[in-house]
Amino acid sequence: MNKIPVGVLGATGMVGQNYIALLNDHPWFEVRFVAASPRSAGKKYKEAVDGRWQLARAYTPSVGELVVADANDVSQARAAAKAGSCAFVFSALEMGKDEIRALEDSYAAAGIPVISNASAHRWTDDVPVLISEVNPHHADIIPAQRKKRGWDKGFIAVKPNCSIQSYTTPVYALIRAGYEIKRLIVTTMQAVSGAGYPGPASIDMIDNVVPYIGGEEEKSEQEPLKILGAIEGGAFVNAAFPKISAHCNRVPVIDGHTACVSLEFGDRKPSIEEVKRIWADFKSLPQELNLPMAPKQPIIIREENNRPQPRKDRDADKAMAVSVGRIRPCNIFDLRFVGLSHNTVRGAAGGGILNAELLKSKGYIS
Amino acid sequence: MNKIPVGVLGATGMVGQNYIALLNDHPWFEVRFVAASPRSAGKKYKEAVDGRWQLARAYTPSVGELVVADANDVSQARAAAKAGSCAFVFSALEMGKDEIRALEDSYAAAGIPVISNASAHRWTDDVPVLISEVNPHHADIIPAQRKKRGWDKGFIAVKPNCSIQSYTTPVYALIRAGYEIKRLIVTTMQAVSGAGYPGPASIDMIDNVVPYIGGEEEKSEQEPLKILGAIEGGAFVNAAFPKISAHCNRVPVIDGHTACVSLEFGDRKPSIEEVKRIWADFKSLPQELNLPMAPKQPIIIREENNRPQPRKDRDADKAMAVSVGRIRPCNIFDLRFVGLSHNTVRGAAGGGILNAELLKSKGYIS
Amino acid sequence: MNKIPVGVLGATGMVGQNYIALLNDHPWFEVRFVAASPRSAGKKYKEAVDGRWQLARAYTPSVGELVVADANDVSQARAAAKAGSCAFVFSALEMGKDEIRALEDSYAAAGIPVISNASAHRWTDDVPVLISEVNPHHADIIPAQRKKRGWDKGFIAVKPNCSIQSYTTPVYALIRAGYEIKRLIVTTMQAVSGAGYPGPASIDMIDNVVPYIGGEEEKSEQEPLKILGAIEGGAFVNAAFPKISAHCNRVPVIDGHTACVSLEFGDRKPSIEEVKRIWADFKSLPQELNLPMAPKQPIIIREENNRPQPRKDRDADKAMAVSVGRIRPCNIFDLRFVGLSHNTVRGAAGGGILNAELLKSKGYIS
Amino acid sequence: MNKIPVGVLGATGMVGQNYIALLNDHPWFEVRFVAASPRSAGKKYKEAVDGRWQLARAYTPSVGELVVADANDVSQARAAAKAGSCAFVFSALEMGKDEIRALEDSYAAAGIPVISNASAHRWTDDVPVLISEVNPHHADIIPAQRKKRGWDKGFIAVKPNCSIQSYTTPVYALIRAGYEIKRLIVTTMQAVSGAGYPGPASIDMIDNVVPYIGGEEEKSEQEPLKILGAIEGGAFVNAAFPKISAHCNRVPVIDGHTACVSLEFGDRKPSIEEVKRIWADFKSLPQELNLPMAPKQPIIIREENNRPQPRKDRDADKAMAVSVGRIRPCNIFDLRFVGLSHNTVRGAAGGGILNAELLKSKGYIS
Repeated sequence: MNKIPVGVLGATGMVGQNYIALLNDHPWFEVRFVAASPRSAGKKYKEAVDGRWQLARAYTPSVGELVVADANDVSQARAAAKAGSCAFVFSALEMGKDEIRALEDSYAAAGIPVISNASAHRWTDDVPVLISEVNPHHADIIPAQRKKRGWDKGFIAVKPNCSIQSYTTPVYALIRAGYEIKRLIVTTMQAVSGAGYPGPASIDMIDNVVPYIGGEEEKSEQEPLKILGAIEGGAFVNAAFPKISAHCNRVPVIDGHTACVSLEFGDRKPSIEEVKRIWADFKSLPQELNLPMAPKQPIIIREENNRPQPRKDRDADKAMAVSVGRIRPCNIFDLRFVGLSHNTVRGAAGGGILNAELLKSKGYIS
Repeated sequence: MNKIPVGVLGATGMVGQNYIALLNDHPWFEVRFVAASPRSAGKKYKEAVDGRWQLARAYTPSVGELVVADANDVSQARAAAKAGSCAFVFSALEMGKDEIRALEDSYAAAGIPVISNASAHRWTDDVPVLISEVNPHHADIIPAQRKKRGWDKGFIAVKPNCSIQSYTTPVYALIRAGYEIKRLIVTTMQAVSGAGYPGPASIDMIDNVVPYIGGEEEKSEQEPLKILGAIEGGAFVNAAFPKISAHCNRVPVIDGHTACVSLEFGDRKPSIEEVKRIWADFKSLPQELNLPMAPKQPIIIREENNRPQPRKDRDADKAMAVSVGRIRPCNIFDLRFVGLSHNTVRGAAGGGILNAELLKSKGYIS
Repeated sequence: MNKIPVGVLGATGMVGQNYIALLNDHPWFEVRFVAASPRSAGKKYKEAVDGRWQLARAYTPSVGELVVADANDVSQARAAAKAGSCAFVFSALEMGKDEIRALEDSYAAAGIPVISNASAHRWTDDVPVLISEVNPHHADIIPAQRKKRGWDKGFIAVKPNCSIQSYTTPVYALIRAGYEIKRLIVTTMQAVSGAGYPGPASIDMIDNVVPYIGGEEEKSEQEPLKILGAIEGGAFVNAAFPKISAHCNRVPVIDGHTACVSLEFGDRKPSIEEVKRIWADFKSLPQELNLPMAPKQPIIIREENNRPQPRKDRDADKAMAVSVGRIRPCNIFDLRFVGLSHNTVRGAAGGGILNAELLKSKGYIS
Repeated sequence: MNKIPVGVLGATGMVGQNYIALLNDHPWFEVRFVAASPRSAGKKYKEAVDGRWQLARAYTPSVGELVVADANDVSQARAAAKAGSCAFVFSALEMGKDEIRALEDSYAAAGIPVISNASAHRWTDDVPVLISEVNPHHADIIPAQRKKRGWDKGFIAVKPNCSIQSYTTPVYALIRAGYEIKRLIVTTMQAVSGAGYPGPASIDMIDNVVPYIGGEEEKSEQEPLKILGAIEGGAFVNAAFPKISAHCNRVPVIDGHTACVSLEFGDRKPSIEEVKRIWADFKSLPQELNLPMAPKQPIIIREENNRPQPRKDRDADKAMAVSVGRIRPCNIFDLRFVGLSHNTVRGAAGGGILNAELLKSKGYIS
């Protein structure tokens, strides 16, 4: 089978490198186009990342030979699309929000679907923020989006912030099972890779934690409401619940965001056993479609009292599963648990690839 | 002035070492008696801690020359007391709870006041759990305790768990200012020194956090209620509020426990500015008495958005102040903040020494 | 093809767990027998390691169901051997040296070959210390060993200390190419997993290095001389060179030992380019035999000036390759370089498995 | 006594902050002038470092109120000098070497002595590179330097790189005692604070070491030779020995550089006991003059086999002493040991202050 040729925008950055590495040997997609800042443009990819490659996993030799395009120059992608080497792009752009938004629009307008990791378009009312297991039906706003904007083949779909991935899927699983969730207080302990490279200085992360990440609490509180929301008249309407209060911390961990959650149900309250059963049994569309990047079990329950832990659990099921543990009653609300997910895979490039697989399955990319 | 001679039980352990180090140059107290397990008994202190001394700060040469007594043999302490070299003891014993309780009773029965770091007696109904700034009046149960047990000079007073110190004083300051606190959800990120030596394995603390500390959540939820409680009929009665739900985590930090707190007031709710004013102005009996170990300002407000941080703030004011920051409204309850205190100083040996100073000022030791 | 059934002694410890994990899906071997201390004996393996499993990689369900034998009771292994479920054992025993030596002897005497990770038999004069790429011919002492001891099928072969693996293969490659090496000064920075579990306390490994590892410098200086030595009259005779001086340090790294090496050649001195060529081209018997665990390229050269690094390079080629970098002249001797290898894979379980593959290929196990 | 008013150039950077913090309560000097980049110029110091102050130790309120001058504009310092608020400056400038060299020259030409932390002037042949205990007599090149350059009161004196401080004083002590040292191979494990702020990314320093620091090996090999050299005809002539080969590594430690040293004596070789005696007894001019910043004992011997360690030993004697341990024969050369010193105190600001005290005692500043 011929693989679909894909491009990566911001291919030399931290998330871009993760896309490149995760797409090694992907059964459906093949990286044939890479774009980055003007500084890297014109170099071979292997030259552009020389001394800056952050991952244990390497890129393939053929990607190393690709000449880096200038991400600001959409014409290069358009030419690649015409030449059959770029059917859609993953956007891992790192620049100002307004610039990213404009640039992603340009790619879509040029007929190139954009599956983005950036936050720029998360609050655009016709752009879906997808967690493939939670709101795959949100992808179906794409025809309305295309129509409204006069785009033919292009569209924009994004993924949410990495900080919310450790609890949004478990929360959704409970809601889908019929249990309303009213309120949720969450404290995150987030890995340094979430800040890109170089990210936090080592002098701030040795023998220390930093109880603040700019913008992260707002995203953690608001993005789940869009994801859990509805489509009305070609635009998203936020869910009213759960109300979320977030405390976001940076801790000296390479990969893996951990979340300590206390939540309050509505009138119907499941038992702890029922919660575990719901999570253990949870499957969604990516599992039904058997998508290549989909974890077999989106939520893995750890019964040991000291798990999940980032170093031991982040890589579960291709680093795409959310691990939960310490499932117990809350003294104040109803339920407490600890959730953990891999922020640069599940929470970034891996989640983006899964979204692409979903969008292909639904026929939006080809 | 002649200094009061003091003993340290468990002098070779982590907390014991902190007592020894903090009592260097204390204006009122001088370490003249050290006791530890039979393994160390009979050796000079400097031999007993050779290769096991954990602190950057050294012990004084004269303490190094003290011969270590067997902590299980109260007669050695009694002899030291008679010889004028042990007016009271700090207990940093590390053994089973029942053994500690019995042993601390024996010292008190022998006429030697015990100021303990151990958890053994925290729920004994006539033993005060003291944070000198919060419940100094609880010391006044001592006459009833002595009477009930038939002790003459001896008594037992303890300090609470280190995990609660980052939020209990700020919480108390608000209550004292007239604001009822109904509920409080707290997530702690606790330093490894809190587990004694060797404590957590490095393989569990490099690139990792552990979302569990045995017994810590229960202590974090219950101990504040005794501290905020009342004395009735010679025994303590717990406060009914605040209801607390705790998530306790171990993080790769040497010293300094950080707490992320969301709390709900009763009907009267202070503004953020009022909260800050109350904390900035908070002083209590140790400050009024100008006790040597008392921080000038028990609660220090950090206005930077990324503080307090363990490495930068734990040593504030002799490592005895609680630093608070990120004071802001809560989306769900009323107030969010981050509290930080030094667990082996404020939360252990330093807090114990301050308690001793308070008890001396009140005339219970001499 | 039917897989050869193998046993793991000390299966619940750190190295034992690595054996279990690495033998998942091994094409030749299958774990069918596990033995550990009496504390674990009688439990299912999954129960025995519950809450103690240290690795990100999991064990297979079928291994989880194995009932743990008592490693001290050789009759259990003998029964398993008879029943066709234990053709040989990997020894990852953790006990006193004398006990290990005696116990390994008993297994061999019972007809069960022992491929050991322990240091107990490293200086036994008829026991080969194997690095499969360096001294595969040392395996051929086995007939003499069997004869001398009156063993029929059993034998003992061991692997060297993990600390020497980062430089012994590169050193050997140069010697094999005809360049005598006279002297070598090496400073290692070793990972905490090398000390087993729990290993170094986190309080000693956060914001710290420890410039001492008991016994490690002696092993680092002497073991290479046996490995590079000759067989004479059924016993090993050490090589006279290179003379080695080692400084061994523990650093806060999970896996991966790094070595900074300065070495002096004999009269013939290769150029830096020649050194690189020799290392890049180096292959040995495991590569010729295409053994399953053999790295394709035993020595990987990193040209970036800040590599190799443990986190980025330890996993190269199934964590079985040695990565070298910073290849440059020495101001005092002739050559400087940095070597790195994965201590629990290449330096322990992975190296042991490769040795077993070699011994099978040579017909010593079947 | 009136304190001498001093200035700090680059006062907002990492080393500058250390100067500010260490000069709190200095008995001779008082910070009255601070200069930094144009970005900070015009602000109060407390505003300029708001959110950027890296140290646990705070600056004094009076320094906080100083208005930051533009370090590029020497006229501001000249005015301060005239006004009696800047008798000399500590230079902690962070810019290109050529710019620093030119700027430091301008200050000196303006009559303001410059005691510099920067490397710019270390190889200027009439500029002394001072370790106060090692080559205090090198200060006496200042009259020749002034004469050659036509400077009246101004001069330039610098301190060496932080990486050499853990072994240069011990090496010198042996040389002074009459033992020639021919060759020395050293491997350093250096703290992240040595790279300034932000310095190494946390993603490179968690679960990792980096075996490279740009330019550090060259400095480590060459600077000691100037320090141990002689003055001939108003210029420095390097010592011929010891020949040094250095391997420099970055490790996840906040403060404190550790060095593993193997060294070869000339024909006369001291015993290990003699080495210890020489180091234990070593005192030099700063100790004789009883300079405020001088450690009582410049070299502290740790007899425990696992010391010195950065976290436990870096702060010895105001963080100004070098701690040495593991003193033992070398298999290849004659002597092995581990040296440790605090890189931002002894190796930077503290060493600079001690140099200033020395220069004042010698009458070069007043």
